[in-house]
Amino acid sequence: MTVTEIAQDLVAICKTGDFATPGEKYWADDVVSIEPGGPPGMDPVSRGKAAAAAKGEWWAGAHEIHGTQVHGPFVHGDQFAVGFHMDITVKATGARQTMDEVALYTVKDGKIVEERFFYGV
Amino acid sequence: MTVTEIAQDLVAICKTGDFATPGEKYWADDVVSIEPGGPPGMDPVSRGKAAAAAKGEWWAGAHEIHGTQVHGPFVHGDQFAVGFHMDITVKATGARQTMDEVALYTVKDGKIVEERFFYGV
Repeated sequence: MTVTEIAQDLVAICKTGDFATPGEKYWADDVVSIEPGGPPGMDPVSRGKAAAAAKGEWWAGAHEIHGTQVHGPFVHGDQFAVGFHMDITVKATGARQTMDEVALYTVKDGKIVEERFFYGV
Repeated sequence: MTVTEIAQDLVAICKTGDFATPGEKYWADDVVSIEPGGPPGMDPVSRGKAAAAAKGEWWAGAHEIHGTQVHGPFVHGDQFAVGFHMDITVKATGARQTMDEVALYTVKDGKIVEERFFYGV
């Protein structure tokens, strides 16, 4: 698959509200998943498929998702970007809020070797 | 200025429809501006402030802009992403079309040292 094909498939899956399958399908075993920051004590860098999946499961469990919009993909060489807009409630606080972010994926040999998240400011 | 401050200022200026001033204000002298591809014979990589400005001037001259939407910024460390949606007419062909792209900027010492464009596919 080309980078564009992977990007389009990832976006199509995310648009169904399924944010777990793209990782299972496209993460490299040694994928590196990087947040801009994180709560004290939480490493912003997750290394390996199991760590990235655990982060996703934690996030899904900690938030109630009311609606999502997925924009893209946008491709450049071996990288592609996707925009996510989410309407969520943080379960721990009950706070309903919107979340805007861009994910930048780097592909090597048909697998995502890095995902880097950018937060709206 | 922090990366977030530069990002917010760049977006605020672009939202006024002015796409030239952010470069003049924030490009490093040796900025590298990278398109995903380009017409045959056109180098997708522009090196230096003069080359990046010339590309911008060529683009502005070759297109009529009917409307723009600017999304972001989205920040991660020394990088930030901005989404652009443009309603344009290509002057050479008269074709009216929309254009979606994401720009990824890398900042060093308060200046943009690289801008990398991702096209919607």
